[in-house]
Amino acid sequence: MNDQRLKTGYQGVPGSFSEQALSEYFSTEIEEYFFPDFEDILLNLQNGNIHYGILPLENSSTGGITETYNLLRKYDCHIIGERCLKIEHHLLGIKGSRLEDIQQVYSHPQGYEQSKIFFRNHSNINFSPYKNTAESARYIRELNNKSIGAIASKKASELYGLDILAQNINFNHKNITRFIIIGNEQEISNDCNKISIVITVSHTPGALYKAMGFFEENHLNLTKIESRPLIDEPWHYYFYLDFEGNLKDPIVISALENVKSISSYFKILGNYPCHNLMIKDGEHNE
Amino acid sequence: MNDQRLKTGYQGVPGSFSEQALSEYFSTEIEEYFFPDFEDILLNLQNGNIHYGILPLENSSTGGITETYNLLRKYDCHIIGERCLKIEHHLLGIKGSRLEDIQQVYSHPQGYEQSKIFFRNHSNINFSPYKNTAESARYIRELNNKSIGAIASKKASELYGLDILAQNINFNHKNITRFIIIGNEQEISNDCNKISIVITVSHTPGALYKAMGFFEENHLNLTKIESRPLIDEPWHYYFYLDFEGNLKDPIVISALENVKSISSYFKILGNYPCHNLMIKDGEHNE
Repeated sequence: MNDQRLKTGYQGVPGSFSEQALSEYFSTEIEEYFFPDFEDILLNLQNGNIHYGILPLENSSTGGITETYNLLRKYDCHIIGERCLKIEHHLLGIKGSRLEDIQQVYSHPQGYEQSKIFFRNHSNINFSPYKNTAESARYIRELNNKSIGAIASKKASELYGLDILAQNINFNHKNITRFIIIGNEQEISNDCNKISIVITVSHTPGALYKAMGFFEENHLNLTKIESRPLIDEPWHYYFYLDFEGNLKDPIVISALENVKSISSYFKILGNYPCHNLMIKDGEHNE
Repeated sequence: MNDQRLKTGYQGVPGSFSEQALSEYFSTEIEEYFFPDFEDILLNLQNGNIHYGILPLENSSTGGITETYNLLRKYDCHIIGERCLKIEHHLLGIKGSRLEDIQQVYSHPQGYEQSKIFFRNHSNINFSPYKNTAESARYIRELNNKSIGAIASKKASELYGLDILAQNINFNHKNITRFIIIGNEQEISNDCNKISIVITVSHTPGALYKAMGFFEENHLNLTKIESRPLIDEPWHYYFYLDFEGNLKDPIVISALENVKSISSYFKILGNYPCHNLMIKDGEHNE
């Protein structure tokens, strides 16, 4: 596998934020395949069609992406890296259209959600949900109607020959999506300083608190807790935990053994180098 | 206000799950108003147009509804009750259509997400996202095309004169949405046995653990933790906590004072009677 270019997969179409994060993560030249559903990435990874896949895990304004969390439990994959990407949404229209022409706009609901204040101030524009931001750009190009716009990236505007009618319409200019890179094997180097696990604990009061205590007493910094419902047991939760550490460290090994001993479900999702994106106040990408 | 019927508000159109939960919650006759956006409910509550509103907070299969969590922080409202509703999705078509005719289906993305296995097995049907399940039912009635269906409730099929082409297509038959009832004032009776709060803690390691300790040492059962990103500070989180208790209990008052003392943001969302919906294995509503 090493003497050929890496085969990678993302969900969506060219011009999507996933594709951008993927090409930023891999510094070498890669082959990129795109798929209609998130789950296709896991299936193609499993059967060896691709070496790595990328999935959005959470957005800093709107929160975690439930489907990705579910897939990480369902499939036997490993997080081998992460990439944070600044998300900038623009209102796009076909060539020659103007902002005041737009009456209807297509996009992924998250693109609309993240641009809600802009659309409060342009209440004459109706929103129609679409599969993803890049596909909505491709779609309005097909429709070729000056009154129909899309919310998508600058790259999508270039790819599909559209005009940017309003720039940076997302209300939060620190709008970041965290993507994870997944593979079939754990890849633990000394650079890996972040560990993701998912657990369920018993329903006895304080069980989660006890699990967190094992991190606390070993001075392992818990950076995130995300709860997700158990499908079969309403109002019981999986807890996705991120903490700082390396899986070769004996302190980490011992803490995880303790956590596992009181968990009814326990899975290590991966150990990988943390990626941070620092955005100063008022800064904009161009 | 008491000598007139209660004015209540929900998001969506008649036939929506929100409307159903609302009328189940209030045993008396109420006036119902419906609005296009969640935020309209808060605005109409604030200016006195309605006495109470209902919002979906989380679904047992797909997780929390981010917009509701954000609105609870943004507005000065109080949770005065909750209602759990079993969600059953059906594939609807216009009169005379058959399952094998359907090529395209409209619905809210959550309706599709919760019925994903059905659509994996009917991969010839394309999905188009729509504002909500009940509106998609109304819309396909307008389109009046035998190849176009909607994913919506039984009530929506009755309201809009549609046929049920496939019953209970949601993959999880323990599919419950928890709705909250909000008002302008706290309403604390002795029946109130559940408290919801939202906090942020400092970034020092263990701060959340310390906050949880105040519940633990007072034997207050923490039933839920949900983390949501802070808009302005990527990867820092608000924590929404539910626990068992009554705000008049001195132990609760003291624990909350301690939690508040180490929180950088602290808000009591409400104290209300817990509503549980028990579903046995294999049970279906008719």
